[in-house]
Amino acid sequence: MGFQSVPFDKKSIDDILEKSGIPLGTASIREMNRIINTIEKQLNVRYIRMEFGIPGLPVNPIAIEAEIEALRNNLAHIYPPFDGIPLLKEATKDFIKAFMNFDVPSHCCVPTNGSMQGGFISMGLAGRRFPERDTILFLDPGFPVNKLQCKVWGYGNDSIDLYDHRGDKLLKAVEERFATGKIGGIMYNSPNNPSWVVLKEYELEGIGKLCSRYRVMAIEDLAYFGMDFRHDYGIPHQPPYQPTVAHYTDQYIVLISSSKMFSYAGQRIAMAIISPNLFNETSKNLLTYFGTDNLGHAFVHGGMYPMTSGVSHSSQYGLAALLRASVNGQYKFTDFVREYERRAKGMKKAFLNNGFTLVYDNDLGEPLADGFYFTVAYPGRDGCRLLEELVYYGVSAISLVTTGSSRTEGIRACVSLTKMEDIPELTYRLETFHHEH
Amino acid sequence: MGFQSVPFDKKSIDDILEKSGIPLGTASIREMNRIINTIEKQLNVRYIRMEFGIPGLPVNPIAIEAEIEALRNNLAHIYPPFDGIPLLKEATKDFIKAFMNFDVPSHCCVPTNGSMQGGFISMGLAGRRFPERDTILFLDPGFPVNKLQCKVWGYGNDSIDLYDHRGDKLLKAVEERFATGKIGGIMYNSPNNPSWVVLKEYELEGIGKLCSRYRVMAIEDLAYFGMDFRHDYGIPHQPPYQPTVAHYTDQYIVLISSSKMFSYAGQRIAMAIISPNLFNETSKNLLTYFGTDNLGHAFVHGGMYPMTSGVSHSSQYGLAALLRASVNGQYKFTDFVREYERRAKGMKKAFLNNGFTLVYDNDLGEPLADGFYFTVAYPGRDGCRLLEELVYYGVSAISLVTTGSSRTEGIRACVSLTKMEDIPELTYRLETFHHEH
Repeated sequence: MGFQSVPFDKKSIDDILEKSGIPLGTASIREMNRIINTIEKQLNVRYIRMEFGIPGLPVNPIAIEAEIEALRNNLAHIYPPFDGIPLLKEATKDFIKAFMNFDVPSHCCVPTNGSMQGGFISMGLAGRRFPERDTILFLDPGFPVNKLQCKVWGYGNDSIDLYDHRGDKLLKAVEERFATGKIGGIMYNSPNNPSWVVLKEYELEGIGKLCSRYRVMAIEDLAYFGMDFRHDYGIPHQPPYQPTVAHYTDQYIVLISSSKMFSYAGQRIAMAIISPNLFNETSKNLLTYFGTDNLGHAFVHGGMYPMTSGVSHSSQYGLAALLRASVNGQYKFTDFVREYERRAKGMKKAFLNNGFTLVYDNDLGEPLADGFYFTVAYPGRDGCRLLEELVYYGVSAISLVTTGSSRTEGIRACVSLTKMEDIPELTYRLETFHHEH
Repeated sequence: MGFQSVPFDKKSIDDILEKSGIPLGTASIREMNRIINTIEKQLNVRYIRMEFGIPGLPVNPIAIEAEIEALRNNLAHIYPPFDGIPLLKEATKDFIKAFMNFDVPSHCCVPTNGSMQGGFISMGLAGRRFPERDTILFLDPGFPVNKLQCKVWGYGNDSIDLYDHRGDKLLKAVEERFATGKIGGIMYNSPNNPSWVVLKEYELEGIGKLCSRYRVMAIEDLAYFGMDFRHDYGIPHQPPYQPTVAHYTDQYIVLISSSKMFSYAGQRIAMAIISPNLFNETSKNLLTYFGTDNLGHAFVHGGMYPMTSGVSHSSQYGLAALLRASVNGQYKFTDFVREYERRAKGMKKAFLNNGFTLVYDNDLGEPLADGFYFTVAYPGRDGCRLLEELVYYGVSAISLVTTGSSRTEGIRACVSLTKMEDIPELTYRLETFHHEH
């Protein structure tokens, strides 16, 4: 089959690791990336790269052509409106109705420079809406940068691990935290990075009701919109709809990233959907920091304006075209990303057949969905040591510890860069690893 | 000549103003904009629009074609590096050498989503570099949103008015503030929005030395790079060079906006040039907020990453192409924006011939340059009342009060939306105004 023989030269790899000075077990995604690049180059080998959560599929030409048209139409010299171009706001409103089945006026749909910016501003508002409520609660494991955002704001953070908190136990833990009176916002993503567990309707309903009761902002990061492939969320105006806390509370800001669902990561654009009630809310505490006491105005004129003055004009046209084509049924985004499901199935099989187990293996009784990420462990090793051993076998990932997980035995695998034709080679490498351990 | 007769219908205008509920004298740029749009539409009239500082010229096709090529080359699905693409960083380094005559390594040149983001992050770092130094000092009048940025960070602000502080008096005032030990950064733009005064080399040198002595960060916003048209700063590798505090201190972050100099406002991209010494500096206080004690790392991984994860991939190629073409002498950006000088000359003449005077009229003994903005007053009226009267005569601007100026008699005029062929109509309107007052 012409596979590269593993293990690779351990001595050379050890030299590179030592020189880097970074222990693999605690390396960030970017650090891991740099180390593996170096090994690949110096040893002339190719890794199965599972550390990096970047989209591996090209964006649809619908977006590219719309951007090019906007550029040719002389928009590059005109400041975009801080709250987004009407075309995009309208398309978003229609998209929300078609795929999430709720109504929101277009002025509540605001483009941001990636969901990163949407999350940053939402968190900023959540922590300053009420005095003393400047702690953000995270459902872990999660995206480590969200906790960094919290730090930048100078807020506190608290977390609940989904591994041992699901269903009523999760809701009980959330309520306990809310009851302290210190929580301004709760942030989570579902499907979850890195575990790929998906919150049930029952859990979203419970969280939503608690947010309403305690007036805590739900910051729902739908980075993987429509990507729980156990259900087809991609048919406009037809159930099933993408689950969301917005069905159960008026305390939400829902973040819809274009990076994964549309593979549009390079142009840095996402949508923040702000509950109309929140949008109209006034709070004196906001005035001190955002120059206005109105929450919607604070998002746009106290957030988007002083932070970036809006989002690149041409990419707003690109995203508007993708959303509109999805609503019209002209483009089925769930079919496009379903490629990740096929990869996850194949890759998980290669792991599970060779002594590995899933860490987050239980989705409240249901088998876990196949998607962008999964988590694995190998008997008798913690995640750090596992990474250090796998690296000789040409397989790279990140340890779960860096995602805030309490499961120190695990590692996170991202499927996006592994093509279907690479899976036999992954299988051979894991077989060899398993045989030698 | 077919000019629209002025004054316009006062009754209708009064009705619109009353309905808006916003007193013109304190209206922000955006509010003024909305009111004038309404009047234009309802009365079917056209204003000489001087309220809005937006570029009135189209961006050069060099940028557009480079963006389109990047989009066609499949970059839209790939996350841009948080610290910018090497092509852009290298072009910036060369641009700095060619037009500002100083050396900076390319890793210190970081693209941001507009200078707005560069200023926001710089200010964030300036206020947290040292404990207790969380006040930003502004040279006023200035861009009001910079003060809003300060609020968002939760910092204090202080200011010195350039109207009565120039030369040694300015430096003395700056030193007095620095000596309090509370100032983390000093922020200014030169040429100055709105007064169009330009800091002299002598003043920049003094500020630079004070920044070094007191370790205060100089945040120099060169929004109008090369646009002091009394000098030709647009010939690569030849004096005169764009003046900058970077010649006099290692405590600088210089912000180079593409919005005005290249008319590239729509794509939200600028460059932050971070002093290599600052870039390498470590400070324990930064660690608490930005996840790293290194200032350069804090800018990129504690700022750009958690706020927007970088800048739109295609616009990085667009800006790189403009910078490279400028360095190569293929594109002379100062000739392009010199159009604003011609407009300013004509428009100022129309004002000065009809009883108006310049407010900021003295550039330390030199006559003021003609550029993007100027400031005027009319005898016996404060700026608010002047705006309210001019609005009947089809002329819109903003009051100087909203820019932090102590000169309550003045208004700010931006030349960018008034074409050369509109100047006779402006002249007729001001003549009529003057005649009737």
